[in-house]
Amino acid sequence: MADQTQEIPERPKGEGEGERKGPSKNELKKLAKEKEKAEKAAKRAAEEEARKKEQDANDVSKEDYGELPFVRKPSGVKHEKLVDLAKKYENETFEKGPEVVFRATVENARNQSAKLSFLVFGQQTNTIQAVVAASDTLSRQMVKFAGSIPTESEVVVHGVLNKPREPVKSTTIQNLEVHVTKLYTLCRAESQLPLQVADAEGRIPAEGEENAVRDDGKPIVALNTRLNNRTIDLKANLNHAIFRIKFGVQQLFTEFLLERGFIGINTPRLLGAPSEGGSSVFEVKYFDQKAYLAQSPQLYKQMMIAARFERVMEIGPIFRAENSNTARHLTEFTGLDMEMAFEEDYHEVVTMLEELMLHIFNGLRTRYKKETDHVRTVYQVEEFKLPEAGKVPRLHFAEGIKMLRDAGEEIGDFDDLSTPQEKRLGALVLEKYGSDFYVLDNYPLAIRPFYTMPSSETQEKYNPSEPNAGYSNSYDFFMRGQEIMSGAQRIHDAPYLEKRMKEHVTPVDPKSDGLRDYVNAFRYGCPPHAGGGIGLERIVMLWLGLPNVRLASLFPRDPGRLIP
Amino acid sequence: MADQTQEIPERPKGEGEGERKGPSKNELKKLAKEKEKAEKAAKRAAEEEARKKEQDANDVSKEDYGELPFVRKPSGVKHEKLVDLAKKYENETFEKGPEVVFRATVENARNQSAKLSFLVFGQQTNTIQAVVAASDTLSRQMVKFAGSIPTESEVVVHGVLNKPREPVKSTTIQNLEVHVTKLYTLCRAESQLPLQVADAEGRIPAEGEENAVRDDGKPIVALNTRLNNRTIDLKANLNHAIFRIKFGVQQLFTEFLLERGFIGINTPRLLGAPSEGGSSVFEVKYFDQKAYLAQSPQLYKQMMIAARFERVMEIGPIFRAENSNTARHLTEFTGLDMEMAFEEDYHEVVTMLEELMLHIFNGLRTRYKKETDHVRTVYQVEEFKLPEAGKVPRLHFAEGIKMLRDAGEEIGDFDDLSTPQEKRLGALVLEKYGSDFYVLDNYPLAIRPFYTMPSSETQEKYNPSEPNAGYSNSYDFFMRGQEIMSGAQRIHDAPYLEKRMKEHVTPVDPKSDGLRDYVNAFRYGCPPHAGGGIGLERIVMLWLGLPNVRLASLFPRDPGRLIP
Repeated sequence: MADQTQEIPERPKGEGEGERKGPSKNELKKLAKEKEKAEKAAKRAAEEEARKKEQDANDVSKEDYGELPFVRKPSGVKHEKLVDLAKKYENETFEKGPEVVFRATVENARNQSAKLSFLVFGQQTNTIQAVVAASDTLSRQMVKFAGSIPTESEVVVHGVLNKPREPVKSTTIQNLEVHVTKLYTLCRAESQLPLQVADAEGRIPAEGEENAVRDDGKPIVALNTRLNNRTIDLKANLNHAIFRIKFGVQQLFTEFLLERGFIGINTPRLLGAPSEGGSSVFEVKYFDQKAYLAQSPQLYKQMMIAARFERVMEIGPIFRAENSNTARHLTEFTGLDMEMAFEEDYHEVVTMLEELMLHIFNGLRTRYKKETDHVRTVYQVEEFKLPEAGKVPRLHFAEGIKMLRDAGEEIGDFDDLSTPQEKRLGALVLEKYGSDFYVLDNYPLAIRPFYTMPSSETQEKYNPSEPNAGYSNSYDFFMRGQEIMSGAQRIHDAPYLEKRMKEHVTPVDPKSDGLRDYVNAFRYGCPPHAGGGIGLERIVMLWLGLPNVRLASLFPRDPGRLIP
Repeated sequence: MADQTQEIPERPKGEGEGERKGPSKNELKKLAKEKEKAEKAAKRAAEEEARKKEQDANDVSKEDYGELPFVRKPSGVKHEKLVDLAKKYENETFEKGPEVVFRATVENARNQSAKLSFLVFGQQTNTIQAVVAASDTLSRQMVKFAGSIPTESEVVVHGVLNKPREPVKSTTIQNLEVHVTKLYTLCRAESQLPLQVADAEGRIPAEGEENAVRDDGKPIVALNTRLNNRTIDLKANLNHAIFRIKFGVQQLFTEFLLERGFIGINTPRLLGAPSEGGSSVFEVKYFDQKAYLAQSPQLYKQMMIAARFERVMEIGPIFRAENSNTARHLTEFTGLDMEMAFEEDYHEVVTMLEELMLHIFNGLRTRYKKETDHVRTVYQVEEFKLPEAGKVPRLHFAEGIKMLRDAGEEIGDFDDLSTPQEKRLGALVLEKYGSDFYVLDNYPLAIRPFYTMPSSETQEKYNPSEPNAGYSNSYDFFMRGQEIMSGAQRIHDAPYLEKRMKEHVTPVDPKSDGLRDYVNAFRYGCPPHAGGGIGLERIVMLWLGLPNVRLASLFPRDPGRLIP
């Protein structure tokens, strides 16, 4: 202990410390104690290290578990899918099953005892139980390692398939379990997650229902918490079901139109000028100019009809700079668009669009029944009611107004419907026609965009001093009383289009940068045509009865949210 | 003539005219002459009008031609497709064929004589000859009307199918012609178009080939003229072929991946922060904040893998604010993206991507042979050479460098290839392996993005003082010596990712707004994964050997072009 003072590290000379000569007696005592402590700890650590080394040397399983490198050479061993194993072996009987290798997510892991750990392995929506049991060939160290793997870690499992004594209730595969022989982590998750996947399986709270819990005691997680941790949230089976359905709608849309001779197009999102009214358009810094984000592919899909393409469709992002923080608005969503030339009457197109929607609904009912049913166990709304085949209720706007008035609403002949009025009318149609899906036809001309074709009568009798009177060849489609699609016959004649642009309630300039080429397109010949645009997220929301459209967007965007 | 002076209109009294008393004698004479002239003209017009009225009254065809209203009631008459008529009747023999009704574009119209007009009607790529002949039931007025319809007008034709005496050489349907009985315009095109569709059927000029003409005497129209009048340009069969092929690539991409368990996703284009380097990103005014346009769905598709989706794909617009005015750069293009978890080695993914590309190439060869052949008659390049089945040349980067050096190029081991070097290597590979398609594997780590997985050896031996040494698990795919896809194994471990972000040649901050959620995604567990992004327009351009990528975009965007 003689050299103790010499070992005191040199202290930097701080302000006001210049006069201190050295450590006091008390300080020396304290330092001595600390040193003793440190020496003891080091000794213990060395002993522990030695013990561990000996143990490791004696660990019969040491090659059979641990962490895998990020980059590996192919082994040539087949990696199985749980879904295939279930199909192949669940209904077979055997004493000792086949050896299998598979990659999976750890959905649960616990050390039952020093000799036994239980795990649940998952591959997307399929799960299987696994047992890690100590034996002559499997060490207690490996049992402990297995039972301590954090949930959500990604692993490679080697094991033998066995029949459990009783069906496993907590996994999707109930008549098989894995007796693990090797277990390696590919990616070790942190042990504390900001959101539990099991909690994300539940619904979001209703309005005013903060801090509530589910019947099973799990918290009802708020929408914002989920969206802030969206990658974890999206791991939930609930979200896998929602987004499988969302992709399903796109496939059903595409296959229906392909069979009818449509061709997919890719039109620009960057525009040189705002083309459909300037208020809800995002502005982009484009080198030394300004550009604007497309609010729809409207003008371009019409130009494609003028370019003789006859029937076009497009699936792509749509941008709306609407400062609306409602449960049904997004600033970026996916548009399903179509446009087609017709022979005589725009109802040819309305009928095809009705059939398209029925194809989508029926496809969801059959091909996505499992997913729809799963979501319905979480968000318990009435099943979506479809009209009898071929009998989609199609109401003239005036008839809709009459139904609302008969029900006590005050509304003018040519007024646009408010959101509550739309919902009210949806309820009245459901009551009268037994369908959650219907079409409101012949909207008033004044509340539709400038390119909308006025009805025959409106063309003849148009009176500039009464611009708010008269109907048009346009329609909205509704699900559960909410609009999912807007469409119309478009004006295909350049001089008449120019006239309508000028006399529209909100006039636009046919010679402006954003519209000149569009108007010109019709000078070079164009057939009569009609079309529509569907909001994909709204269809998903309304099919499933989700309480918020953000639940139907992987990474939703609204005026307050741009991340993640 | 007495009241002549009284009829002189009152002239406004301009500056310096105050002293004039009235018209001079000469002026009076002149006015008298003008009046006489006007009266004669009026008389002639009245006579003409009367004659026309009489003629119209005597016009036996007056109900059988003219302009149709924009809105019509359905007639119940079936409207035929030329392609169906050809299939059904071209190989049949008959004296007088069936009556047909169809909608079509006037591709040509001429008055042969007062009694006879010839027209060519088109429906997309199908054309048929028509005859309008005066008779007891068809007036000369109608013949004149028909022969004077401007090219590109849209019409409804009623007629009788006949066999022409000799096959018609100038139409696609050669063994049928229409004897017109009724003819109505739906949309009358202007008679002077800024670009002729027939001219748009040819190629664009080569560099320095201004004002050249084709062998048939038609002008070789410059790219800018076409793009400025894109709707007319797109009417050309050449463009119908190109954009059918473009959609074909998307379908082939989708069907291949769907069969292998991929799911389509829709990730945001509006980002809260630039995520992949700030230099080539477009900035958006987002209410009171700034947003940025996605340069790729890279980070989001990886987050989907972390969210257990295993295999994802996306087709969507990609935005690059690169001020490059080359023949192969666009500021907005269509990305075909895919990302997948793999079991052991990222070459599982490379192999699948090679097979994907072969599926696309073979699909184009078989299903789009007609379109490919058509474009090849215009742009006469070598046919695209495919490798023998399953033998896509896959070269280690070092091998590529060696081939270039052996050919006399000066290039460092870890240098990126210049565009000419890429083309040179493409030619060398074609020579050696007989394939226009090959993969360059194991790119140098330093020239790839931060999320690229270093090779095993580079991980072990990484030396911060030599950041430009070492390879990575990344690859580019090439067609005709030009890059069409970039991809890699990605880092799936959060701590290692953070380390790589900091030590990258261009370091990024793992805690920044644009990257925090991305890095966190890997803290919650993620399997090893790899993927790639394909530029759709480049595939189309290189498959067909088009001289400019703009020809593969409906409405291309570059630093100088935002319209139409």
